[in-house]
Amino acid sequence: MVITSLQNPKLKQVVKWRDRRDRDRDQVVLLEGYRALSRALAAGFGVHEVFYCPELYVGTHEGQLLAALASRGAQLIQVAPVPFAKMTYRDRPEGLLGIGHQIHRTLADIPRKDTPPFLLVAEQIEKPGNLGTMLRSADAAGVDALVLCDPRTDLWNPNVVRASTGVLFSMPIPECTSRQAFKYLKDNHIQILATTPHAEKLFTEVDLTGPVAMVVGSEQVGLSSLWMDHADLQVRLPMMGAADSLNVATATTISLYEVLRQRLAAGMMTVPPPAPDEHNRAYDRDDDESF
Amino acid sequence: MVITSLQNPKLKQVVKWRDRRDRDRDQVVLLEGYRALSRALAAGFGVHEVFYCPELYVGTHEGQLLAALASRGAQLIQVAPVPFAKMTYRDRPEGLLGIGHQIHRTLADIPRKDTPPFLLVAEQIEKPGNLGTMLRSADAAGVDALVLCDPRTDLWNPNVVRASTGVLFSMPIPECTSRQAFKYLKDNHIQILATTPHAEKLFTEVDLTGPVAMVVGSEQVGLSSLWMDHADLQVRLPMMGAADSLNVATATTISLYEVLRQRLAAGMMTVPPPAPDEHNRAYDRDDDESF
Repeated sequence: MVITSLQNPKLKQVVKWRDRRDRDRDQVVLLEGYRALSRALAAGFGVHEVFYCPELYVGTHEGQLLAALASRGAQLIQVAPVPFAKMTYRDRPEGLLGIGHQIHRTLADIPRKDTPPFLLVAEQIEKPGNLGTMLRSADAAGVDALVLCDPRTDLWNPNVVRASTGVLFSMPIPECTSRQAFKYLKDNHIQILATTPHAEKLFTEVDLTGPVAMVVGSEQVGLSSLWMDHADLQVRLPMMGAADSLNVATATTISLYEVLRQRLAAGMMTVPPPAPDEHNRAYDRDDDESF
Repeated sequence: MVITSLQNPKLKQVVKWRDRRDRDRDQVVLLEGYRALSRALAAGFGVHEVFYCPELYVGTHEGQLLAALASRGAQLIQVAPVPFAKMTYRDRPEGLLGIGHQIHRTLADIPRKDTPPFLLVAEQIEKPGNLGTMLRSADAAGVDALVLCDPRTDLWNPNVVRASTGVLFSMPIPECTSRQAFKYLKDNHIQILATTPHAEKLFTEVDLTGPVAMVVGSEQVGLSSLWMDHADLQVRLPMMGAADSLNVATATTISLYEVLRQRLAAGMMTVPPPAPDEHNRAYDRDDDESF
């Protein structure tokens, strides 16, 4: 079967899933592009349908990826270029669009590792791009889980998928209230560090090698009183310039890499070897727009 | 004089300046919004015309800012809401749009400070958002200058102004070829660190308290052979997760803050006090969309 008509009901359904209400009602996530689908496959994330349009492929491995997804149970449906253009939400579609099931995790799903817990807690984040960037940085810094408290954005928003570069499919992301997260951290004796620009202490002055949760607040108002008043410590980043703040995802990334730096310096973790390909000179090489 | 007509020639000129060719021909930069204009004012950056529309103000300090800009020689021109909506390039205009002169700096303009030189060199950056984020992070980390080599984006692009949160107007940004920058660094005995995901050495293993230039490459292909083959050192960030790269602006930010961390630990610099306002809990509070 090849979808050739703009009136095809499956096509119309996919377009509807761009709307959050429809996505949430059907508990669906859209996975567009080679990278999102390959990361989902590697993470064992369920993808039950993949729409593909060979005329739009930008690489040479799409066929292999589709075969691997099919062997895990995905139904493959070919789509002609014109109707595919209607389904895609990208400026530059790559001819691959998957449908997966949303997964909802709780605090009980936080994995236990050999190293002391290292958590990121994000409260009331509003912008999908910030949440996606935080996921990407949390993955790179070796965070165990990103605890999402009272979010104001939808975790399954296509822009979170995109900005996270598919990390959304491998990172454990418990969803709960700030109160529940706070209780979990206290019960598990995990040090709570509230990041805020007005703290006295610099984040680099704190021992971050023990069980630790970095807590970051919303773009507009920062952290709620629960975290500000009851965190074990408030910490800030030094700001040396003319501007007086950083983007929240940027500030979070810097803080997470300081935890990693201290743990590596203490010999608590081993760094994987560098990218093997001599030609992999670019940090951005799998950024969405430049895949 | 109040501009009320969509046919007003000044209005038409501003709209044309959204196009790079027109901007470059007239050596103009558009400064939209309260923050960009206030940062430009604080930095002594020349603004010769400001269009304002009181009906669109979102704060209460616009009048003061306009008065200060006028006292520095800016001509103020009121615009009615409908024509202002035509001039703005923002989704949520704030009723302020200035016109300034582009400034072009050379390597000779890099300021000499008491501390050893700390430079960021960015080669062939393509995306205005990445360049803007690098500027914002460089400012926060205390970089002396951002050396822009063979850029593929336009420094004076409105999205650089926006993403840099106006740091564009205070940070020295010499423009030159990679070859010129390389010679400058060698002549001035500044250690050249090429950041690349395939280096053996971690950036945290290097002494960054001496004269240092962090060199970062383009999103697509990374650094050119000049830097890869002739840098004093190649360094990488540890990547602990499922994904194998970071956004180039994110990777740059992490690297710059490690330089700052080492210099603060060595007592070479003093950190300004934290944000005084107890209610300044948010790192993002002056992000473009949430000003």
